[in-house]
Amino acid sequence: MSTDTPRTSLQLRSLIRANGELEVSLQDVDIPEPAADEVLVRIEATPINPSDLGLLFGAADMSTAKVSGTAERPVLSAQVPERLVKAMAARADESMPVGNEGAGIVIKTGSSPAAQALMGKTVAMIGGAMYAQHRVMSAAQCLLLPEGTTPAEGASCFVNPLTALSMVETMKLEGHTALVHTAAASNLGQMLNRICLKDGVQLVNIVRKPEQAKLLRDMGAQHVCSTDSPNFLAELTDALAETGATIAFDAIGGGKLPGQILACMEAAINRTAKEYSRYGSAVHKQVYLYGMLDPAPTEFSRSFGMAWGMGGWLLFPFLQKIGTEASQKLRQRVAAELKTTFASHYTRTVSLAEALTLEAVAVYGQRSTGAKVLIDPSKGLAK
Amino acid sequence: MSTDTPRTSLQLRSLIRANGELEVSLQDVDIPEPAADEVLVRIEATPINPSDLGLLFGAADMSTAKVSGTAERPVLSAQVPERLVKAMAARADESMPVGNEGAGIVIKTGSSPAAQALMGKTVAMIGGAMYAQHRVMSAAQCLLLPEGTTPAEGASCFVNPLTALSMVETMKLEGHTALVHTAAASNLGQMLNRICLKDGVQLVNIVRKPEQAKLLRDMGAQHVCSTDSPNFLAELTDALAETGATIAFDAIGGGKLPGQILACMEAAINRTAKEYSRYGSAVHKQVYLYGMLDPAPTEFSRSFGMAWGMGGWLLFPFLQKIGTEASQKLRQRVAAELKTTFASHYTRTVSLAEALTLEAVAVYGQRSTGAKVLIDPSKGLAK
Repeated sequence: MSTDTPRTSLQLRSLIRANGELEVSLQDVDIPEPAADEVLVRIEATPINPSDLGLLFGAADMSTAKVSGTAERPVLSAQVPERLVKAMAARADESMPVGNEGAGIVIKTGSSPAAQALMGKTVAMIGGAMYAQHRVMSAAQCLLLPEGTTPAEGASCFVNPLTALSMVETMKLEGHTALVHTAAASNLGQMLNRICLKDGVQLVNIVRKPEQAKLLRDMGAQHVCSTDSPNFLAELTDALAETGATIAFDAIGGGKLPGQILACMEAAINRTAKEYSRYGSAVHKQVYLYGMLDPAPTEFSRSFGMAWGMGGWLLFPFLQKIGTEASQKLRQRVAAELKTTFASHYTRTVSLAEALTLEAVAVYGQRSTGAKVLIDPSKGLAK
Repeated sequence: MSTDTPRTSLQLRSLIRANGELEVSLQDVDIPEPAADEVLVRIEATPINPSDLGLLFGAADMSTAKVSGTAERPVLSAQVPERLVKAMAARADESMPVGNEGAGIVIKTGSSPAAQALMGKTVAMIGGAMYAQHRVMSAAQCLLLPEGTTPAEGASCFVNPLTALSMVETMKLEGHTALVHTAAASNLGQMLNRICLKDGVQLVNIVRKPEQAKLLRDMGAQHVCSTDSPNFLAELTDALAETGATIAFDAIGGGKLPGQILACMEAAINRTAKEYSRYGSAVHKQVYLYGMLDPAPTEFSRSFGMAWGMGGWLLFPFLQKIGTEASQKLRQRVAAELKTTFASHYTRTVSLAEALTLEAVAVYGQRSTGAKVLIDPSKGLAK
């Protein structure tokens, strides 16, 4: 065990005051002593996922963002629009750590053999408070990365890989045989495409632009529909008829797309219908809204019969539902295919302080496909 | 067995031509000989439910309706709007019998003891083609009505009673403890209210007008919210907090109400939340759209976390799901409480020919709460 580990650590905190003022800053926090079963990890890579932005910025309007403080200790502020302040009441005046997942090096351990076995190893973690220089974690919850894996390669081990795998698992569990994904050119979408190609699962990718369609086709995707095509609905219906996909995962949330997917599924099913049913097809069609890229209202015309569902979908409740053993299998697959199926790509790597610059916020805050930022909290520090 | 039973019978048929012209008329059809296990029923009461209108009129615009033919054999025509003609393609040029459910007297039977036991009895039936003077039915599928029950009293034994009971069953099966119902002053809504009062299930009734609220309160309803109240959302949230209702059945379908119900459920749950969760409450909130009183698009803002679902709900798939034995229990309860819990009320009773007058269509075609029409196909005929 190292004896010269630091006593305090820099941690990113997000605070929304009762008046709607957002303040994101870096705080010195004490590093707790790892308990017997725990390890202390020096975090060297932690991604900014769309799912982190909700906690990081809340409902603040980031076009009002400004930075004060020093270059080493910047303070990012922004204002929550009046009409949304009430929705933030539950977290008002509570300073919250941020960062779902990350990876780093174990630099101190508790006394248990399991903890000691991880000394000096590179591990991946999930559980919040990862936008920090250090994190204490139970040894059992650390994912030991294969020899030769860097923290940057292992930083996104959980959210995107488990989400993509769990979409395929949900598809199977709920009795569907092919699936649809929107915002399909995202890091997550590319991962899902690789999983489906590898596992022989038919996937209909929906993107917004021709260049995103090309990107996916170049990666081997067979079914790609672009919403900017004048024949989008007809092309989507064709792809649904060919694949038989009756479940979709939508990252966008707002607008008409979820309802259009259901309507095209119904049209695809009815191509082979043998008799008229006034209630529409009896085949259950499902769209899960798992993201919020578009916060606008969702709107649909009910032109898809009565056998349909729309709903929220979230990774952790799903993992709880399938249980520890099944979840563990998914995690092991991620570790084994980390440099292939589950490889992530980042637009840039920043320090904790750099993450709070307006320039960086402009990149990762836009919730757009493909622009993904990695924080290295050890950047600029002696390791 | 009677030997002087008629050979032909009057049957209402609905036809939508490929050009979008709706034609509803009365046809003479041969009465088939009942097989060994079957009975021939003289239908004396069959209701026009909202769920019949889809097959009866399709997507025709009934403001274009006109009647030709004779008083005894009227022909009702109307036009399907151009943009909806395609949606009717599956039934184009196919003359279809109509009428989900009905009741009458067994006037002839097959040779099996089960069939013969029903001779002269009053039975209720479901299975389509009830807007007719006669219906052949398997004896096993006839619900024998208790002694002293008239066909009019037994005409609505299935659709509304089983729907109302199945809503409560769905609530239990899916782990909820109280429920919400919209268009709650309808025949179905009043029935659901009686079931919930009798069974001690908490029900939140949503209506449109104060007089509908009064009607339900006079019937003992404890929680009634009217959408025309300026404080509707606050009142609904209060009722949801008091009852703990996390599942709703919506007869309306269009507009913002389904999403508002989910948002109010979330607000009610968060009143007792102990800590902030960026994903909203973990309590699953469900709205089933089982009706289409408003064909306008459904629109919602996703302000209710991630644990939510919206979906279609239909009686018969639900009965199939719970199986024969459980369904049979529900049917037996309906027969036992036909004059109390499951009593239906009709605005008027018409003959088959009268059902095709513009005056009658104006009453039952408006899909409004409380105006329910009963057809007596034997009306005006010697019994």
